[in-house]
Amino acid sequence: MSGPRRIAVLLFEGVEELDFAGPWEVLAAWADQFPDDGIEVFTIADLAGPIRCAKGLQVLADHRREAAPAFDLLILPGGRGTRPLLKDDAMLAWLRDLAERGVTIASVCTGALVLAKAGLLDGKPATTHHGSLTLLAELGRDIDVQPDARFVDNGTVMTAAGVSAGIDLALHLVMRMHSVERARQVRRYIQYDPSPPI
Amino acid sequence: MSGPRRIAVLLFEGVEELDFAGPWEVLAAWADQFPDDGIEVFTIADLAGPIRCAKGLQVLADHRREAAPAFDLLILPGGRGTRPLLKDDAMLAWLRDLAERGVTIASVCTGALVLAKAGLLDGKPATTHHGSLTLLAELGRDIDVQPDARFVDNGTVMTAAGVSAGIDLALHLVMRMHSVERARQVRRYIQYDPSPPI
Repeated sequence: MSGPRRIAVLLFEGVEELDFAGPWEVLAAWADQFPDDGIEVFTIADLAGPIRCAKGLQVLADHRREAAPAFDLLILPGGRGTRPLLKDDAMLAWLRDLAERGVTIASVCTGALVLAKAGLLDGKPATTHHGSLTLLAELGRDIDVQPDARFVDNGTVMTAAGVSAGIDLALHLVMRMHSVERARQVRRYIQYDPSPPI
Repeated sequence: MSGPRRIAVLLFEGVEELDFAGPWEVLAAWADQFPDDGIEVFTIADLAGPIRCAKGLQVLADHRREAAPAFDLLILPGGRGTRPLLKDDAMLAWLRDLAERGVTIASVCTGALVLAKAGLLDGKPATTHHGSLTLLAELGRDIDVQPDARFVDNGTVMTAAGVSAGIDLALHLVMRMHSVERARQVRRYIQYDPSPPI
């Protein structure tokens, strides 16, 4: 096996709950159920205190962003809280720096808008929430927007569609970082046999 | 339309993240996107401070359990933190009292174990996480365990299968409390077109 060992999940005011909680569940369940795989997952944020998510849930991050341990993979969720991030030059520079240092960045939902604004999707295929596909194209240069993709894997930059798509992307990450077998085991653990009633 | 208007989501030490975050996303997105429907969703817990979930996420509840506003529907998630709840007589009595007062209770994953221990599943069909089906039967009397059900709706007591099944149950709740159309709109909002890569 190869690939990332430490995984950071970015939290911020207005982050959409399932955007981070879906990948968190998949990746943290992997870390918890298979300790020999050496996976560590933690949350990071600029705020030290309680963070109010987009739909009102209150969460706390494990580490301040600037003081966090080094990591190999960043989960960048979406939500209405991404809008201020588009104007946060320090955040955009930090993302570019991570990418230059070889850290894999995987966005969920409108997290892709922040990647686009940082220039990390220029000339690449990418996706986002169905309501933000046009904006995604406008924020970068020659982004090949994929409206029907559940997620897009560009190697070191990945983007998922809206909200619940982060679960599928996270299972893909387990597969890529370890094996199909491990991804199946995690899928079984979270009993991910979706059956939408409508 | 008819049915519950206020929805409480119970949090506790060792609660499984996606067990509550899945239904939270569905129900709070409904409340947020359709304010005229008059839905309110909040979290409740015995702890006033940070709660450490089963896989390590830190969350804060909106209200102490004993001081929470009245509600019509309780989401009871699972996780390893349900094991102490099985011995918490005050918690079990509270659940019985809610049921007697006509509050609907919907469990996710091993939340069903707590309902079984409270006697609320006696003689009824029910389900839980695939790893706890035998224990579920042992905790109550004549529980009709349904290993293959994604969720079971008994009218005022509902149980869902493991972890991710709470998303499907929550969409069912939107349908039951409002309409198929509304449930479809919320499903579209969270872009729940699951596509497990493995």
